[in-house]
Amino acid sequence: MGKVKMNAEIITIGNEILSGLVVDTNSAFLGKELAKIGIQVDFRTSIADSEEHIIFSINQAIKRAKIVIITGGLGPTHDDITKKTLVEFFKTELVQDKKALEMVLARFQKFGYAKMPESNYEQALVPKSAKIIYNEVGTAQGSHFTEGETEIFSVPGVPSEMKWMFENYIKNFLKTKVKGVLLYKTLRSCGIGESSLWEKIGKAEEIFAGIEVASLPHFFGVDLRFKIKAKTQEEAEKIFAKAEKIVMEKVGASIFAKDEESLQEVVVSLLKTKNQKLATAESCTGGLISNLITNVSGSSEVFFGGVSVYSNEAKQKILGVKGETLEVFGAVSEQTVKEMAKGVLELSGADFSVAVTGIAGPKGGTKEKPVGTTWIGISTKTEVFAKKFIFAYDRLGNKERASNTALRLLWEKLVSENEI
Amino acid sequence: MGKVKMNAEIITIGNEILSGLVVDTNSAFLGKELAKIGIQVDFRTSIADSEEHIIFSINQAIKRAKIVIITGGLGPTHDDITKKTLVEFFKTELVQDKKALEMVLARFQKFGYAKMPESNYEQALVPKSAKIIYNEVGTAQGSHFTEGETEIFSVPGVPSEMKWMFENYIKNFLKTKVKGVLLYKTLRSCGIGESSLWEKIGKAEEIFAGIEVASLPHFFGVDLRFKIKAKTQEEAEKIFAKAEKIVMEKVGASIFAKDEESLQEVVVSLLKTKNQKLATAESCTGGLISNLITNVSGSSEVFFGGVSVYSNEAKQKILGVKGETLEVFGAVSEQTVKEMAKGVLELSGADFSVAVTGIAGPKGGTKEKPVGTTWIGISTKTEVFAKKFIFAYDRLGNKERASNTALRLLWEKLVSENEI
Repeated sequence: MGKVKMNAEIITIGNEILSGLVVDTNSAFLGKELAKIGIQVDFRTSIADSEEHIIFSINQAIKRAKIVIITGGLGPTHDDITKKTLVEFFKTELVQDKKALEMVLARFQKFGYAKMPESNYEQALVPKSAKIIYNEVGTAQGSHFTEGETEIFSVPGVPSEMKWMFENYIKNFLKTKVKGVLLYKTLRSCGIGESSLWEKIGKAEEIFAGIEVASLPHFFGVDLRFKIKAKTQEEAEKIFAKAEKIVMEKVGASIFAKDEESLQEVVVSLLKTKNQKLATAESCTGGLISNLITNVSGSSEVFFGGVSVYSNEAKQKILGVKGETLEVFGAVSEQTVKEMAKGVLELSGADFSVAVTGIAGPKGGTKEKPVGTTWIGISTKTEVFAKKFIFAYDRLGNKERASNTALRLLWEKLVSENEI
Repeated sequence: MGKVKMNAEIITIGNEILSGLVVDTNSAFLGKELAKIGIQVDFRTSIADSEEHIIFSINQAIKRAKIVIITGGLGPTHDDITKKTLVEFFKTELVQDKKALEMVLARFQKFGYAKMPESNYEQALVPKSAKIIYNEVGTAQGSHFTEGETEIFSVPGVPSEMKWMFENYIKNFLKTKVKGVLLYKTLRSCGIGESSLWEKIGKAEEIFAGIEVASLPHFFGVDLRFKIKAKTQEEAEKIFAKAEKIVMEKVGASIFAKDEESLQEVVVSLLKTKNQKLATAESCTGGLISNLITNVSGSSEVFFGGVSVYSNEAKQKILGVKGETLEVFGAVSEQTVKEMAKGVLELSGADFSVAVTGIAGPKGGTKEKPVGTTWIGISTKTEVFAKKFIFAYDRLGNKERASNTALRLLWEKLVSENEI
């Protein structure tokens, strides 16, 4: 297998990955980030902390890839043998690096340790023939070797440290090596199925000739992911602008965000623009909507707060839902969800409220109201409306889908108000 | 590299895995499940839907592993070339299988399709020289090849289908091949650091001679994971019982659960046993505690509900926190969190309440109260107490740590009450 132009191989080292105790999210991160700068990952290998396997894999990777990123095995315990093995493989030796030692010592001081554990002095030993990738967010230093036409990077397996080194060293280095640009852009839609979306847009190969478009369905809509190759960033942006114009003309009403922005981020920023406040009343979602909204930094400016009214008692006591309503129509009904939405709006004095009540499962379903039956209500100071959904997943899936659908309805309401 | 006794290799096939669009959770599942029946994964390889790379990887895997599990590339679209490539590699041919065809047709009928898309007829074509792993939860059939001493399984990449085939075919087949048993057991501790835990237990190699113990630190404690090899299940259970007894004698007060049980599951079942109710009042955690508790099926029996009092206004309006308290001591203070805990207890009439207020960040920190400063309060009908923590992570990390710590304090309170 010959070397493809600037292809990459990722090697993850660690017993805990092979035995499934840790899910390997590092490889997904690296795959995504390398793709953004136009580098394709051809192979990914996970191996145990075994000298034999490490040497075998590096040897193989160097033969078939121009970029090799090795994660893991750099900690201070006896399991971690990556550094030692690399030193052996590249026939070099370990030397103490002054700057690295200062950094490691400073880190321990910062966290209030009087004395640094002996094993951590090793964290300042670096392979002599490598460039050092200093670690500002941990104690393990990274290494950058060059062997023939291949660049080899060894970074820690801790995701935050790996990411930091990628962002601050590897990416910058690789960018200088890549010719041309590869632009990834995403347009995120919601409230529309994949086939309807494409019916409205038309045939991809005609409409977006020369651009690669992937359509990625998710819980509450479809992401359109554009991959654009061009000589310059400017040229790539122009090509994308043309594609974006087409999408917005044909299905603009369903596009809620660009790139990685989440529905809750869009909702929070719309509320900020309008200078309006939101309150939530959740039964089956049990606080998940409130949790998603408060994951957005700055949400405190527009989020009054919410109630997780899991019991009928809570619905009555906190929101003033009528006992009669619960008795006649049930907790999962249009009438109840509307009273919940109105109740929390009054309690909070907010401008918008969203309320959810449903049967998350696995128990509690009936023939008339099967597991997954969910009512979502939205209230403003002048109106209240509710919609019924039946989600057919497990407990956590139903909670997630109900929360995302509630956010989508809220987004649609916020946008439609803008248009009036 | 010679073949190790019953070692396994996992090959995942799919462009979307290499480019990071999909996180490979299949490998983690397989690693865990294989370990449970005593089979170690030595290598894991991810490759694109490329004939050349698939053949290269299978060839390599067969040479070094006795069990090869290949996931992905079995769908009906043109990208999916695993089946075709396996047929070529094993020098066999595709034949239509009557049972598979009936199953695929029945599936389409069940979902209300009048006619099956043409491409799905291919899902009933199977490699002639392989045993078929019939798919009862999807349309792609799996294959089981034997080559020399190696067993090769090809299964779909869709996690639910892969898991179904593992549980219903691969696991049963492999169990007949493995001699002896391997027992994995976990004891989960909280509220204690790794070094303190081991100081109290003693030296692992002396205390647990002959048993492999991994200590896995997490947000709020340490999991002790025991790996026990024995001839029979009974013998393994006996060995574990001995180890468990030692742990319980030395650090029993910190052990909250066995195996995969979560803190919220333990809290819910303790409340059930005591027939008592819980209410929550959350500021910085924004509903996450309530969300975690309502993830537990059956939590409705013991969870009144909670409030996400994100604004000072909400703290005052819903919980009756005094304006004076907020002004003099601030929203993030012992006084406020105690008033929150008492407020929600009164509002709900519950037996226990937990309240959290803090600065999740990234903004809002001061010199006196840096980002991460968090007060957690617990109230019963007769007492209220609060503790201060400083978590030093990002916004989501701080929310997560604060929620888990709140659950831990609640667990400690519930357990200590049992002892009185």
